[in-house]
Amino acid sequence: MSLTVVGTMAFDEIETPFGQSGKIIGGSATFIALAAANFVKPIHQISVIGGDFPKKELAALADRGVVLDGVEVKENEKSFYWKGKYHMDMNTRDSLVTELNVLADFNPVLPEAACKAEFLILGNLSPQVQSGVIAQMKTRPKLIVMDTMNFWMDVALDALLDTIKKVDVLLVNDGEARQLTGEFSLVKAAKKLLTMGPKYLIIKKGEHGALLFHENHVFFAPALPLEDVFDPTGAGDTFAGGFIGHLAKTRDISFENMKTAIIVGSVMASFCVEQFGTKRIREVNHEDISTRLEQFVDLVNFDIDLV
Amino acid sequence: MSLTVVGTMAFDEIETPFGQSGKIIGGSATFIALAAANFVKPIHQISVIGGDFPKKELAALADRGVVLDGVEVKENEKSFYWKGKYHMDMNTRDSLVTELNVLADFNPVLPEAACKAEFLILGNLSPQVQSGVIAQMKTRPKLIVMDTMNFWMDVALDALLDTIKKVDVLLVNDGEARQLTGEFSLVKAAKKLLTMGPKYLIIKKGEHGALLFHENHVFFAPALPLEDVFDPTGAGDTFAGGFIGHLAKTRDISFENMKTAIIVGSVMASFCVEQFGTKRIREVNHEDISTRLEQFVDLVNFDIDLV
Repeated sequence: MSLTVVGTMAFDEIETPFGQSGKIIGGSATFIALAAANFVKPIHQISVIGGDFPKKELAALADRGVVLDGVEVKENEKSFYWKGKYHMDMNTRDSLVTELNVLADFNPVLPEAACKAEFLILGNLSPQVQSGVIAQMKTRPKLIVMDTMNFWMDVALDALLDTIKKVDVLLVNDGEARQLTGEFSLVKAAKKLLTMGPKYLIIKKGEHGALLFHENHVFFAPALPLEDVFDPTGAGDTFAGGFIGHLAKTRDISFENMKTAIIVGSVMASFCVEQFGTKRIREVNHEDISTRLEQFVDLVNFDIDLV
Repeated sequence: MSLTVVGTMAFDEIETPFGQSGKIIGGSATFIALAAANFVKPIHQISVIGGDFPKKELAALADRGVVLDGVEVKENEKSFYWKGKYHMDMNTRDSLVTELNVLADFNPVLPEAACKAEFLILGNLSPQVQSGVIAQMKTRPKLIVMDTMNFWMDVALDALLDTIKKVDVLLVNDGEARQLTGEFSLVKAAKKLLTMGPKYLIIKKGEHGALLFHENHVFFAPALPLEDVFDPTGAGDTFAGGFIGHLAKTRDISFENMKTAIIVGSVMASFCVEQFGTKRIREVNHEDISTRLEQFVDLVNFDIDLV
């Protein structure tokens, strides 16, 4: 089993009603890899960083089985930087600063091993870059999962629709599903999105859980009710990392197993939001994960006589 | 098994982005009774109406096993009337007109049989009226369920807190749970509410499902994802009716059975929102309910190896 992860590795600076993070490590590929590394090795990381990206952060990823030869280092440039502020409800945020830096002309070249991975996940990036990665794969991966965001719907819709055609699982949030289809009802939006290429669709609803659609089937997983949501940054990427990590570990891409993968993703995301940035998800161990999986079973499990 | 339902029987007039209902039948006790009647008979209805309330609507309830001798008829007055308008997202609404009419001095006197019911559900009404009903019960019901709303938190908080102490299950929505406790986190709010008297707490989140709290346990049931939500009016009451109906039918008030009752409530609510007012829930039969229960099982059921 092997997994290729494409996405950003970045600096984040986060303000929430509970505090300020200072400059910390973030980026879609960072969160995805940290979550997935609990389930699968090796992970081939495809990203770009500046000379300012801490070496010890790279070492920490390498320790977890993340192969970094696909991470381009532009020594004389700065890493992607994002600063944002969350509102009281922690569901909405404002971007205060976005500096693309090294990301501005990112054109990844995949190392040999990364081109042969069985599983590929495309974190949020320009759809042209995502398509470029798919084109470099030597054999069609068993499963391609793609995340995106509303920004690309605004500035690169045609390229986005073209990339969506090439993937198996599309990950969007509820607002993005509505924007991409013009349908307010998520069920109607899902039906349209499933005609655009992907065989599977995941609609993330943040604290309200996630929906998995496939043909006429739908599965729902709640988010774990938590006492405190400290910082939602990276929760969606961490969810995606848990999802693809479980699938790559089990090498089973059936709908039944995707349900389980959604639960695993929700478990990983529930850790992510408990601390700033990657702090909590780099601490979790298999026992933590098992305990929380049990909590999920208790949360949704019920008996009913269908008579 | 027997159930006493207290609440309003009213005229509603509803505007949604999809149409206008005209003047139709509504009221918390109407929705609760219509939903519960699928599971339990007799239902002792405690309410008040004016001479303008259609006799055929009373006959329709009686046909379903709803005993109406506890419904006071004030022939020369008008029934409670509410007019509201839903916004595009169907989650928020404005009250355009509220005429209390007969409800202004409602002081229910329970018939003998209603005082002896095993199960009691207090639909949204002033907490003084709700307490007055509890005081009339000859023997403590096996279970008392209480609904309320933010309005009573604003105008009658002390009476509300006093009534809450006397019930077993409190039903509130997420905004009300926050208002009543001053806690934004629903988990923290639930902990506080469970110290106020009720042993069980249900937090309704509309299209985002419902949470059941008891001691350190929590159970979550989603709302069924629907293609169209036509009119959410009465969905919370219909949920409550399905919940208490299932409990009264099975006479089992364990936490495990309450989970099932929550699912039954969600199923009933999923019908309610498909048409204006009570239209859809008065049409459903046992086969419809069974089919939708199966959809719920499919929606949330997953297998996982907890190793």
